[in-house]
Amino acid sequence: MRHAVIMAGGAGTRLWPLSRADLPKQLLRLGGRASLLRQSYERVAALLPPESIYVITGRDHLDLVARELPELPAANLFGEPVGRDTANAVGLAAAILKHRDADAVMGVFTADHVITPVEKCTAAVDRAFTAAERHPDALITMGIRPTRPETGYGYVKRGAALADGVFEVERFTEKPDVETARRYLAGGDYYWNSGMFTWRVDTVLHQLAAHLPASHAGLRDIAAVWDTPDRDARLEAVYPDLDKISIDFAVMEHAPRVLVVEMDCDWIDVGSWTALEAVLGADADGNVIATKSAVVLESHGNVLAGPDDHLIATLGVDDLVIVHSPDATLICRKADAQRLKDLVAEVHRRHGHRYQ
Amino acid sequence: MRHAVIMAGGAGTRLWPLSRADLPKQLLRLGGRASLLRQSYERVAALLPPESIYVITGRDHLDLVARELPELPAANLFGEPVGRDTANAVGLAAAILKHRDADAVMGVFTADHVITPVEKCTAAVDRAFTAAERHPDALITMGIRPTRPETGYGYVKRGAALADGVFEVERFTEKPDVETARRYLAGGDYYWNSGMFTWRVDTVLHQLAAHLPASHAGLRDIAAVWDTPDRDARLEAVYPDLDKISIDFAVMEHAPRVLVVEMDCDWIDVGSWTALEAVLGADADGNVIATKSAVVLESHGNVLAGPDDHLIATLGVDDLVIVHSPDATLICRKADAQRLKDLVAEVHRRHGHRYQ
Repeated sequence: MRHAVIMAGGAGTRLWPLSRADLPKQLLRLGGRASLLRQSYERVAALLPPESIYVITGRDHLDLVARELPELPAANLFGEPVGRDTANAVGLAAAILKHRDADAVMGVFTADHVITPVEKCTAAVDRAFTAAERHPDALITMGIRPTRPETGYGYVKRGAALADGVFEVERFTEKPDVETARRYLAGGDYYWNSGMFTWRVDTVLHQLAAHLPASHAGLRDIAAVWDTPDRDARLEAVYPDLDKISIDFAVMEHAPRVLVVEMDCDWIDVGSWTALEAVLGADADGNVIATKSAVVLESHGNVLAGPDDHLIATLGVDDLVIVHSPDATLICRKADAQRLKDLVAEVHRRHGHRYQ
Repeated sequence: MRHAVIMAGGAGTRLWPLSRADLPKQLLRLGGRASLLRQSYERVAALLPPESIYVITGRDHLDLVARELPELPAANLFGEPVGRDTANAVGLAAAILKHRDADAVMGVFTADHVITPVEKCTAAVDRAFTAAERHPDALITMGIRPTRPETGYGYVKRGAALADGVFEVERFTEKPDVETARRYLAGGDYYWNSGMFTWRVDTVLHQLAAHLPASHAGLRDIAAVWDTPDRDARLEAVYPDLDKISIDFAVMEHAPRVLVVEMDCDWIDVGSWTALEAVLGADADGNVIATKSAVVLESHGNVLAGPDDHLIATLGVDDLVIVHSPDATLICRKADAQRLKDLVAEVHRRHGHRYQ
C-alpha cells in the first residue's frame, strides 16, 4: 500500500523573525496563503487518504502540526526529540511503517517549497509511486527540470528511459560552479535533486542497513517499541546519538539502483525573504507585500511581511526586506537577505533564546 | 503672584507612529528620557510650587497629563474641547487666572522643545517674570540666541537694553529666506521667537480685547463660569467658534510695548524624527537609538525608536527612520522625514482614524 511521509523538520532562521524555533517556516502562512506544510499535504492528499499520510517533525512542533493538519490521525505524526538530518528522519518513518504494513511503498516529501502547477506535481508523484511498485529493487528520486543555472542545488543526471518521464539515474552531482550549471541546463539531461523520493520500505531499509548500519540498528530498535509505552524512553536513549547525515549522502549516492522521475514544475524554495517574490508576485512598483496592512508610498522593490493587524508604512525606501512579528521587526537590504543568519546570530548573542 | 501655564496642545503627526491623536508628542518618553511635558514642568518647577503651575491641553488628554504630572492640582488642568491655536489657549488660561488672582503675573511655556542647560533656562525664565513685574505695561517674549541661519522660525529684533539680558523689541519678523537668516545670525541682535512669554494677566487680556475682541469676549464668558457646573456647556457653546490664530499674529506683533528676554540655551525642536539626534546623540555608526531593544548590524546613520520590549533588528541599512509602535511601524528615508505628514495622510485615507 502507498504511504506518504512529509518531512517538516528544521527550525529555519531564514524567514526570521516570522519563522522561529517554535514556529518553523513550514507552518507560516504568508500573504494569506496556506502554509508550506498544508500545501505539501494537499499535493499528496490528491492521491492518498489522510490515513496514509504522515508527518515527521520536531517533537516540540507536533501540536502545531496537528492543528495545521487536523485530518491526520494522531498515530501518523512522528516526533523527533532532536533533528538528526534526513537519513534518520526517513529511516525512522520507514522502520515504523514496516511494522504497520510489511508491503509498504513509501513516498518522502518536503515542505520547504511552493510547487506549481499542483496537478503536474501530483501526476509526477503518482508516476513515482508507480515506478517504485514496478521496480521494487530501486530507490526513486523526483527530479525537477532546471529553469536556470542554479549553483545552490545538487543535480541528478538521467540515463536510459524506462517509461514516460522515468529514467535510470546515471549519477548524482554536488552543487556545481556556474559554468558547470550552465552546461547542465543546456544539456537537458540533468535534474535538480528535489529531496522527494519513493521506494518500497524494505528496499530503503535494506540500503540503510548496508550504508548506515548504526542508524539502521538504532531505528529498528526504536520502531520495535514505537506503538508501545516504551517509545519515548527508547527514542531518548537512541535517537540523539545517531549520525547526522542526509539521505542523499548516506544512501542515494551509494545505492545500486536509483531511478529519477521527472517533475516538470515551478519549484520555488522559500528559503529567504527575497524568494517570496516568486511565490506572491510583485506590484507595479516591484513591492512584494505579504500583509494586508501596508501603506507604501514612493517605495520600490521592497518585501513586506507581517501579521495583517499591524500596519507597515513606508515612504521613499527601496530594495528593503521589512518583516514585522509581534516581538521583533527586521529591516535589511534585499542584497543582504542571504546573510540574515549573521543578524540572527547577533540577536542570539545579545538576547539569548528570547527572539529565536 | 507668579503663575506658569504650559501649553500642551496639538496632536502632532510629526513623530508618527509613536505620537498619536491619543498620545501627543509632548507625552512621549523617547530613549528612556522624561517626556517633553515633564521636562517643561521641571524647568518651571524650579521657580514655582505645583499649585502655581497649569497645563492647557486637549480635553481628551487631561487624564494623560494628570498621570504624567501627578503633582498638579486637578483645578490646574485646563481642557480645550478643540484646538483654537495659541491666542485662544493663552487667552483662556489668562481669563481663568484673572478670576483666581486679580494681580496675577503669568508665564506661558511650550512643551515642544528640549532646552539645555536647564539652569540657564530657568534663570532666563526668572528674569522674564521679573521683567513682567517691573514693566506692567509690557508683554515679554523669551528669545533664543540663534546658533544657525534657521529659516523655519520667526525672529525678534532687539532694541535698547533695559537690564541684563532684557531688551525692548524693535520688531518681529516672519520666517526669513536663508540670506536674511544669515544676516540675522551675523548681526547678533536677532533672537528666535520661542513662543514663551511672561506678562501681567490684565495686560495681556487688555491687548487681546484690543486686537482680538471676539475671542476676548468669548473667553471672558467662559472664564466667568469656569469654576461652576456650567463650564462644559459654555465651553462647547463658545470655544469652537473662536478664530484660530496664534498669539504672535493676533497680539504680539500689534502690542504697543514688547520686551525680549534673552535665553542663551540649546533649544531643540523635537519636531521630526531626525531631530532626535540633537537630543539623544548618535553612536559611533551614526545611529540614533531610542529603544533598549535594537540590534544594528552594518547599518549607519539610522534613527530607531520604539517601546523597549520590541526588538528592532537591522542589517546593512543606512539613513533610515525606523519607528515601531504597538500597531504600526514606520520605515522612511531620513531625507523624507519632513514629508511624514504625506504618509500619515495616506494612512488616514486608507484606514480612517485607526492609526491616527
